[in-house]
Amino acid sequence: MTHTSLPDDLTLRDVDGETIILVVLDGLGGLPHPDTGRTELESASTPNLDALAARSSLGMIMPVGEGITPGSGPGHLSLFGYDPVNSMIGRGVLSALGVGIDLRPGDVAARLNLATIDGQGVVTDRRAGRPSDEDGRKIVDKVRASIRPPDGVEVTLIHEKEHRAVLVLRGDGLGAELADTDPQRTGLRPVPVTATDPASAATAEMIQGLLDQVGEILAEEPRANAFLARGFAQFSPYPSFQERYGLGAVAVAKYPMYRGVASLVGMTVDGVPGSNEETVAVLEEHYGAYDFYFVHFKDPDSLGHDGDFDGKAEAIAAVDVLLPRITALNPEVLIVTGDHSTPALFREHSWHHVPTLIASDWARPSAAEFGETACRGGDLGVIPGKDLMSLALAHAVRLEKYGA
Amino acid sequence: MTHTSLPDDLTLRDVDGETIILVVLDGLGGLPHPDTGRTELESASTPNLDALAARSSLGMIMPVGEGITPGSGPGHLSLFGYDPVNSMIGRGVLSALGVGIDLRPGDVAARLNLATIDGQGVVTDRRAGRPSDEDGRKIVDKVRASIRPPDGVEVTLIHEKEHRAVLVLRGDGLGAELADTDPQRTGLRPVPVTATDPASAATAEMIQGLLDQVGEILAEEPRANAFLARGFAQFSPYPSFQERYGLGAVAVAKYPMYRGVASLVGMTVDGVPGSNEETVAVLEEHYGAYDFYFVHFKDPDSLGHDGDFDGKAEAIAAVDVLLPRITALNPEVLIVTGDHSTPALFREHSWHHVPTLIASDWARPSAAEFGETACRGGDLGVIPGKDLMSLALAHAVRLEKYGA
Repeated sequence: MTHTSLPDDLTLRDVDGETIILVVLDGLGGLPHPDTGRTELESASTPNLDALAARSSLGMIMPVGEGITPGSGPGHLSLFGYDPVNSMIGRGVLSALGVGIDLRPGDVAARLNLATIDGQGVVTDRRAGRPSDEDGRKIVDKVRASIRPPDGVEVTLIHEKEHRAVLVLRGDGLGAELADTDPQRTGLRPVPVTATDPASAATAEMIQGLLDQVGEILAEEPRANAFLARGFAQFSPYPSFQERYGLGAVAVAKYPMYRGVASLVGMTVDGVPGSNEETVAVLEEHYGAYDFYFVHFKDPDSLGHDGDFDGKAEAIAAVDVLLPRITALNPEVLIVTGDHSTPALFREHSWHHVPTLIASDWARPSAAEFGETACRGGDLGVIPGKDLMSLALAHAVRLEKYGA
Repeated sequence: MTHTSLPDDLTLRDVDGETIILVVLDGLGGLPHPDTGRTELESASTPNLDALAARSSLGMIMPVGEGITPGSGPGHLSLFGYDPVNSMIGRGVLSALGVGIDLRPGDVAARLNLATIDGQGVVTDRRAGRPSDEDGRKIVDKVRASIRPPDGVEVTLIHEKEHRAVLVLRGDGLGAELADTDPQRTGLRPVPVTATDPASAATAEMIQGLLDQVGEILAEEPRANAFLARGFAQFSPYPSFQERYGLGAVAVAKYPMYRGVASLVGMTVDGVPGSNEETVAVLEEHYGAYDFYFVHFKDPDSLGHDGDFDGKAEAIAAVDVLLPRITALNPEVLIVTGDHSTPALFREHSWHHVPTLIASDWARPSAAEFGETACRGGDLGVIPGKDLMSLALAHAVRLEKYGA
């Protein structure tokens, strides 16, 4: 499986100190406001990003493929240079890594939703009334205290947030070709755990047994009386950033999902910032100890999902205010992009290309503005997301010439 | 091995006389001057190229891949429509073709440097004090007169230029998975010839034996008393231009390297011009006898390597002055591009896209200027280098419609 677009026989230069910072504004790309014709990014006050654009190569990233709307996992894998189609991993593995479970090859992970089931066994609320973090945690603790693991299998059950939890099975001969039990809408019964290949049949039985136990343990609970499972996936480790790019890498992200996908490619995850400001503070703290820094800001995506055009523009402006602290670190290469678009008008992730800048002494600048219009006319053209790392390494002069 | 991006079942039109001229300005692409924001090409006086751009489709070529800096071999193979990653050949083969050795399949070629080694066997000068062409030739002649080839193997030794020479072995069962003996810096001993796969072990021994003989033959020489070998490669012929495109092709290039890569794809190499003016004269002489003309100008690359921004701009302008003689030939398609960028500010080949024009009656023009900015906004977008030949054939109306 080739993850990268770098030729096998291309050599990394043996360099020290050419530092790369990758700033991801989640869901950065947008659609123009009907009144102004300007996108969220183009409407935001971004003097610092605009100044950075003036010394950057500009372009648009296509994260997965034309017309393909990426989830967060593929979106980030692509930015990290891993082919998001051939290296697709299940959401379960991403979530398990995100909550800090130290997965081993062969582990099977799934996402769990706390849910409400009525006397007839029909799902009446797929999120158990959206419990608070504290209430959700109590329910998961209650299950963990009583559940009996299958013979020879280690079961890990971790609360994630609100109604969400993660299940991991560790043991020999497990399989994860399993269909979701979440029926996707209320009024239906949970789907029994079903293996879609024979090698996963035993695992299906084990997990059904665990879910049945959960029903008994939570029988008296008024709302959260069942778990729905989805995103079954088996963990197999990836060639790491260090192996592939010769880069010691660290991830700075507030949300577990993004720390998870970073740790999947071998980035160090050290420190959990609670805000944008703390995100930059953790970056500053680490700076100098690594070659590559992945810095994640979530708010533009969240506000895009809310359909809040102005809010998303403000969320982008809020990162712009912090940018001088990042440029003050003076990395050789500073990239600003997104993992996908989340246009406020669309209220969902979308397939639209994502504005991208690569600031470096070796950039070919074309405009003093960071936005969809400027990036569309930029020197880089439309870049498959998985090629971004080649460009990052090139601008850091970390690649040898290819062929004589 | 797929060399081209043309579908297998795409048919060539049976035409006569739709001529294509490909003009390569080596290292054409640049970076903007900090004072003016204009690249070398954009700073050069190029009234003729600008007029040509006004009747051309413009675009940017990505020779090998995003972020990948091509050597001359991959850069040209890509322009000729051959996948430069899957058809990588060693520099030894290119050099051997460049000095006019008629390689056969299985031949193993290497580049040699005349070098100076001291009494302790340590390299003190990797270029033997850069001998003149004449002095270099004398040394190589001296070795050739005395060297004894291994049993059953034919050895060809040709002086190339100054301190450089080419070695070719012909025989059964040779292999070229051999590491360079050049230690890459002075103060170290030459690396013994080492096979990196078992099939090349016997060849490694033979070549070590030859290099040992060279040491004896040149023992009394004050400076050029050893050969360092690198770029070992085994020749396997490529499908030719004639087979693939139905084009009788000729190459006009002052430097052996470029004649070599052209002959690798079956172009005729006839005439060695000594200057830009002679290059155009040789083209004029051949014109009418072939379908495809590859014309190479080296100076922009050389001056880019020197870091001479103004000199590179002048070298481009010097080609512009000769352009009317090329347009006067009135080819159906005239392409002007480069094999890679060599920005004067960077002083090396780089990964940056290369400005490209395709002049034809069927062009979609967008600007009356030839430069990075104009080409970035051109109709062709960013073109993988290996797709250029498809576009050349298309603009010459030499391809049938694909499918009914």
